[in-house]
Amino acid sequence: MQELIATVGEGKVVTNPATIDNYRRDRANDPDAGTPIAVVRATSSEDVQAAIRFAASHAIPVVARGAGSGLSGGSSAVDGGIILSLENMRDIIIDPLTRTAVVQPGALNAEVKAAAAEHGLWYPPDPSSFEFCSIGGNVATNAGGLCCVKYGVTADYVLGMKVVLADGRQVQLGGTQVKDVAGLNLTQLFIGSEGTLGVITEATLRLVPAQRPPTTLVATFSSLDDATDAILAVTSTMRPSMLEFMDNYTINAVEDLTRMGLEREAAAMLIVQSDEPAELAAQEIEQIQALCHRYDATDVFHTSDAEEAEAIIVARRMAIPAVEQNGTLLLEDVGVPLPQLGELVRGIDEISQLRDVPIAVIAHAGDGNTHPLLVVDPTDAEQQQRAQRAYGDVMDLAVQLGGTITGEHGVGRLKQPWLVNSIGEDALELNHRIKRALDPQNILNPGAVFAPTDFVANE
Amino acid sequence: MQELIATVGEGKVVTNPATIDNYRRDRANDPDAGTPIAVVRATSSEDVQAAIRFAASHAIPVVARGAGSGLSGGSSAVDGGIILSLENMRDIIIDPLTRTAVVQPGALNAEVKAAAAEHGLWYPPDPSSFEFCSIGGNVATNAGGLCCVKYGVTADYVLGMKVVLADGRQVQLGGTQVKDVAGLNLTQLFIGSEGTLGVITEATLRLVPAQRPPTTLVATFSSLDDATDAILAVTSTMRPSMLEFMDNYTINAVEDLTRMGLEREAAAMLIVQSDEPAELAAQEIEQIQALCHRYDATDVFHTSDAEEAEAIIVARRMAIPAVEQNGTLLLEDVGVPLPQLGELVRGIDEISQLRDVPIAVIAHAGDGNTHPLLVVDPTDAEQQQRAQRAYGDVMDLAVQLGGTITGEHGVGRLKQPWLVNSIGEDALELNHRIKRALDPQNILNPGAVFAPTDFVANE
Ligand SMILES: Cc1cc2nc3c(=O)[nH]c(=O)nc-3n(C[C@H](O)[C@H](O)[C@H](O)COP(=O)(O)OP(=O)(O)OC[C@H]3O[C@@H](n4cnc5c(N)ncnc54)[C@H](O)[C@@H]3O)c2cc1C
Ligand SMILES: Cc1cc2nc3c(=O)[nH]c(=O)nc-3n(C[C@H](O)[C@H](O)[C@H](O)COP(=O)(O)OP(=O)(O)OC[C@H]3O[C@@H](n4cnc5c(N)ncnc54)[C@H](O)[C@@H]3O)c2cc1C
Repeated sequence: MQELIATVGEGKVVTNPATIDNYRRDRANDPDAGTPIAVVRATSSEDVQAAIRFAASHAIPVVARGAGSGLSGGSSAVDGGIILSLENMRDIIIDPLTRTAVVQPGALNAEVKAAAAEHGLWYPPDPSSFEFCSIGGNVATNAGGLCCVKYGVTADYVLGMKVVLADGRQVQLGGTQVKDVAGLNLTQLFIGSEGTLGVITEATLRLVPAQRPPTTLVATFSSLDDATDAILAVTSTMRPSMLEFMDNYTINAVEDLTRMGLEREAAAMLIVQSDEPAELAAQEIEQIQALCHRYDATDVFHTSDAEEAEAIIVARRMAIPAVEQNGTLLLEDVGVPLPQLGELVRGIDEISQLRDVPIAVIAHAGDGNTHPLLVVDPTDAEQQQRAQRAYGDVMDLAVQLGGTITGEHGVGRLKQPWLVNSIGEDALELNHRIKRALDPQNILNPGAVFAPTDFVANE
Repeated sequence: MQELIATVGEGKVVTNPATIDNYRRDRANDPDAGTPIAVVRATSSEDVQAAIRFAASHAIPVVARGAGSGLSGGSSAVDGGIILSLENMRDIIIDPLTRTAVVQPGALNAEVKAAAAEHGLWYPPDPSSFEFCSIGGNVATNAGGLCCVKYGVTADYVLGMKVVLADGRQVQLGGTQVKDVAGLNLTQLFIGSEGTLGVITEATLRLVPAQRPPTTLVATFSSLDDATDAILAVTSTMRPSMLEFMDNYTINAVEDLTRMGLEREAAAMLIVQSDEPAELAAQEIEQIQALCHRYDATDVFHTSDAEEAEAIIVARRMAIPAVEQNGTLLLEDVGVPLPQLGELVRGIDEISQLRDVPIAVIAHAGDGNTHPLLVVDPTDAEQQQRAQRAYGDVMDLAVQLGGTITGEHGVGRLKQPWLVNSIGEDALELNHRIKRALDPQNILNPGAVFAPTDFVANE
């Protein structure tokens, strides 16, 4: 420990148990989170390198941590390990000429958006947590969000990065150009690797011209099937810039909290945006409206008023905290091909009944990515067990429907046991080979994504 | 050999030297291409697996080959190895509901575009060679093209793939969804891996709604500096759907061939497109026109007539064959950040003079990706040597300017010696680790991307 303090500097190494406790869990509140020996709050790449060199020489686990907003236990602490917090590395440099941003990992997504906006530019990726998640965490999980349905995920905006490897070396991957095929695409390999291959110390991001002000449509349905049919009808014929879904449970939870006048009886509500130029947007919204009516929407309205629209989006972004008022959450993140969305939503309802656990469903519906929220009474140990089973059931169902166990939150620790079912044994074995090749001691976020038993130290 | 014929079937194994000769080189005409023992023309994944299992058990090199249109010697034959041709695997299945295409590797890019268009959909990636290059080759090189400046490269459209590994197993990577973060992003790792990690037997591609008919602008400049300044002025303030560049040498070569009335005195010509909705396109084109005039364009005109526009684009696509009329080509593919484009173009001119080798420059200018074409007299051995040096000089210059040795053609065999300078020793070492982990015998396209000496068999 003295060695660690000597290399990175006293002020940056936290050993006080009370403070350490704040760094032990992400927003998934992993009950199995361990107790680290220290938290290193890096202020530079050199600090990151020093911490990893220290960890490598003692074969100690290192868990990178951005803002700790993750929902899969990806940054849960490991007993005897180090939490490497990037929260104090948050420089942002915008280059309007090349429309790129060079960003330190701790900068919040919202800070990057704001810095880009000062130059009339836009950084599209918009996880609902954008005000309190870091770019490093976004890159490490390949975060999605609301505008992905038209604008893609984080990976689509990362041109290059600096990353500190398991042996403490820092390498530059990629650069500032859209086109670069010199060697294997390691940039993309590290995106979404959840801190298991290296620690991202800088990201070069692509920016685009500011988004046009969108038109927002809200539609409610009295039947889930109608709602999912309408979604497929829209996505297969148009390209909305947002297409979100909330089920009856969620609508009521949000209404309880906000009293904004949502239709409490609705089985589902869709929020759709078009950001095409005015005339085209009007056409698109009209077409969407017609499709909603064709699928018996009970109520459809749209607005071009920015404030009114923002209120609706905020309602959507409040869904998780709103549902959280009713119990402890187990957050799911499964995705399926869009034609299977209806079957997934119906299947989740069956699982909810079978396991006797309320499951609220919100979804980035436009790309088939749903967030079933399992609502658990924290005082009911029996229900907690049933919820654990339901959590697995939902993933099994998604895989059965040709989907994925995680669309955007990452595997982390909570979903690790299901990874093999999702991608298959051969693909998992390929993952293992790469992990071993890059982190032979398995010191980088051990237990996240892959089972600790998959790796033997110093193999 | 009998063993190979017995497993994949006689009709699919070519051993006739005359026929084999047609498969020894790609369009780079690699003088060092070897002589394979056989060409396997696979008709199914099983054939690919059988060929690779055969190769693995005898530690024989396997070079995957799509349409052989590559420009970096990526599919040059290796002495004693097998050429694994995918040309007879070309099924295309379009699913309009999910807007995806499931494509066998041998299907031509143009065939995929046409199949998508039947459903009113569009597969954007458009290498100039789109009429005679395969999707497998596009994915294996992460091919770019003309519309990348707005619509991205091949990697942005690949959702999943089937790939046969060095041990003959076939694995499914990714799927049909835009969002999927279960495990490492192996799909993206295999894109651009040039046949060194596995052989792609199927790709799942994302399709988008048909492109709007574009407006096309052509501008000529009497000074190279003005032209590159205009490019930067456009790319930093707008988002054209195409921004191509031809220098004086190229303009004249195309004019020699086509007699279409290009301005032979011009130092440079830009071809710019906007595919925004009519009103916006008109605005954008007007703005581009104004910028061209600000940078002293000698002539600017634009057209919304599809045929007229196509004639101009064809001229651009004919650039390589046109310049080829004047000698043997050594094709470059360097890219730099856009603010460095002017310096690159001037530097190439200096190299051309220093080495006394004509160099025509065409460029996907909007993303800083240039194709200097070194024109060599095939009867002049001395000039050939000077051209070899110039070829290296151009790459050194690009790297010095913060760029890449290859924007879209791949490293192949011709650029392999320069890879280390482009990405650095540490990143190269990471590449090696992954290559070793996935192809321990180094049987997959040995000598392409990486030096054969980097790997010891059975390590
Ligand atoms: C209310 C709410 C809404 C959300 N909505 C969305 C959404 O719409 N879309 C979405 O994708 N996610 C969403 N999330 C999940 C979460 O915000 C994202 O996963 C986010 O990208 C995590 O960023 P973070 O900085 O908090 O990372 P952390 O939670 O700190 O870490 C996440 C993972 O990344 C690794 N990591 C972090 N920084 C680095 C680094 N510099 N180098 C290497 N590895 C690193 C960690 O080890 C861990 O495995 C939501 C979360 C909440 C609480
Ligand atoms: C006139 C002309 C213009 C061109 N313009 C462009 C352009 O604008 N943009 C651009 O990017 N390229 C361009 N190219 C280069 C070339 O067309 C592309 O690289 C194309 O993607 C190669 O496809 P192919 O099927 O011909 O591949 P091949 O030449 O057969 O192979 C290319 C590489 O991919 C590997 N490979 C092929 N198929 C597979 C597979 N199924 N699995 C694994 N590996 C495989 C090969 O081993 C080799 O390394 C141009 C070429 C010419 C001749």
